[in-house]
Amino acid sequence: MYRAGIDLGGTSIKAGIIDGQQRILAHTSVPTRAERPAEEVIADMAAIVRQLLEQMQIEEDMLAGIGVGSPGLVDADAGIVRYSNNISWENVALVKELKKYFACEIRISNDANCAALGEVKAGAAKDMSNAILLTLGTGVGGGIILNGRVFEGSNAGGAELGHTSMVVGGEPCTCGRRGCVEAYVSATALIRDAKRAAAADKKSLLNQLCDQRLEDMNGRIPFDAALQGDKAAKEVVENYYTYLAEAIANYVNIFRPDVVLLSGGICNQGTHLTKSVEEHLSFLCFGGDRAFVPPVRCAVLGNDAGVIGAANLIVL
Amino acid sequence: MYRAGIDLGGTSIKAGIIDGQQRILAHTSVPTRAERPAEEVIADMAAIVRQLLEQMQIEEDMLAGIGVGSPGLVDADAGIVRYSNNISWENVALVKELKKYFACEIRISNDANCAALGEVKAGAAKDMSNAILLTLGTGVGGGIILNGRVFEGSNAGGAELGHTSMVVGGEPCTCGRRGCVEAYVSATALIRDAKRAAAADKKSLLNQLCDQRLEDMNGRIPFDAALQGDKAAKEVVENYYTYLAEAIANYVNIFRPDVVLLSGGICNQGTHLTKSVEEHLSFLCFGGDRAFVPPVRCAVLGNDAGVIGAANLIVL
Repeated sequence: MYRAGIDLGGTSIKAGIIDGQQRILAHTSVPTRAERPAEEVIADMAAIVRQLLEQMQIEEDMLAGIGVGSPGLVDADAGIVRYSNNISWENVALVKELKKYFACEIRISNDANCAALGEVKAGAAKDMSNAILLTLGTGVGGGIILNGRVFEGSNAGGAELGHTSMVVGGEPCTCGRRGCVEAYVSATALIRDAKRAAAADKKSLLNQLCDQRLEDMNGRIPFDAALQGDKAAKEVVENYYTYLAEAIANYVNIFRPDVVLLSGGICNQGTHLTKSVEEHLSFLCFGGDRAFVPPVRCAVLGNDAGVIGAANLIVL
Repeated sequence: MYRAGIDLGGTSIKAGIIDGQQRILAHTSVPTRAERPAEEVIADMAAIVRQLLEQMQIEEDMLAGIGVGSPGLVDADAGIVRYSNNISWENVALVKELKKYFACEIRISNDANCAALGEVKAGAAKDMSNAILLTLGTGVGGGIILNGRVFEGSNAGGAELGHTSMVVGGEPCTCGRRGCVEAYVSATALIRDAKRAAAADKKSLLNQLCDQRLEDMNGRIPFDAALQGDKAAKEVVENYYTYLAEAIANYVNIFRPDVVLLSGGICNQGTHLTKSVEEHLSFLCFGGDRAFVPPVRCAVLGNDAGVIGAANLIVL
């Protein structure tokens, strides 16, 4: 049997057909154009899945189901996207709507949950069944996999690892609260801190590497400057690792997963990132070396994680 | 069938026999005397269970199993208490040892997990199957119940809700880390803050209510002084509620439980406590009123929660 996975994003809708060995047999994408009515976006989702099936000459009765990863607050049990700022959806009955086009099983989840599931089924944690994934991008998404399945929380709106406060009253977060993990370990937060450090130390390499234009600061510059020995940049990077490790230690003390996965541009730092975080973790996790401290790994599937994970919402 | 529950504490070992309706038919307790070898403590646990069975004239083959709640870091799958500062145990094979006395199923878990399970099966959350419990005492224990079962984490050392940092680099915690929830919302933390406030404002009622002896400060005084309009005490109490709500919002954003339970002396404040926390929560939880915000309730079973919960580690 085959499964289809759809990764619904603010920019594009990606879809793929996977086989029983978690291989993507065919994939495609179309622009989301989220300004349209949701029904039209969903019609496009159905159309590209059908197109892939035709392309692969797969009959619809060989499709076990379709899984969809959506940004925002997803009610997986009800099949409804409660709210997504990214695509301006509110209470869209995604599963019901897609069922107009397909008779097979259809399931939805949050996009970070799908990315986590993808990495567990076919990527950086394919040898494990319990994992935490943090997507470190503009925001911070969280995915929790327990016994090989997505953990959604008991009611819709759980698994929001990025929206747990690690500094009560601290930096403002996009969610309206202060001090959230997202406000400290997102790429956005790293860039904010690099800009502040550059402004505070005009001689820092941080300024040169963005040609003195702070608005051009990106998430790579602090690491590059730190590597060249720049003091201000080193402090920014060390601070970032500290907060990231503190956040991860919190999740470890709650979930004790087999592995912690990270994704996003920050993973370009590779083992420098994972080793630095692991060093912090060994001191921060409850019980120290009396308990299992999970390894930290970078995700490996890139954009495919969302599609593979979404397809795996359908359990064969 | 009957089940036995044992609540192993630093001061006493409590045991009870429960029936299928979660009623405690008989219970007893003996001093722990934790300075003895663990084998002797465990022999006492076996002896009091046997005594209760004899007292109730229950044959051993009518006992479905024995559950034990232990303080500290418990490896439930392995049946081992990895480490407990309270009773000075390290790597004690509690299940194996108890099996020398009984042929029935024996299971162990952390004491806060058992208290949570007890409240879900027979107490403040008996109408629900997904709950978070915080025990607000000298430390802060956490229990997570998912679908009516204890969630231990995937490896030993999970569910330590009290040891998640909410102020990175903040107040020192007993676990060696800084800024843990325990360091802000335990009774110990409340007393620390009340002492500080009293020392900073000599005219505060906080000083009078402990007869000017700060060493006699307790967890009730700040609430009493606040009720009488004392400004410093009101600030201590409001701060305490703020941190408690921030911690709970973190757990809600991860677990979205049906209910959040609190236990400990602080629950004497009743609805003043729960309503205050609920007011904060409605602003702090991710998704605001687009998602379910669980009610906050005080635990109702008192000391019985541990025994009933431990017995319920055995699933009939």
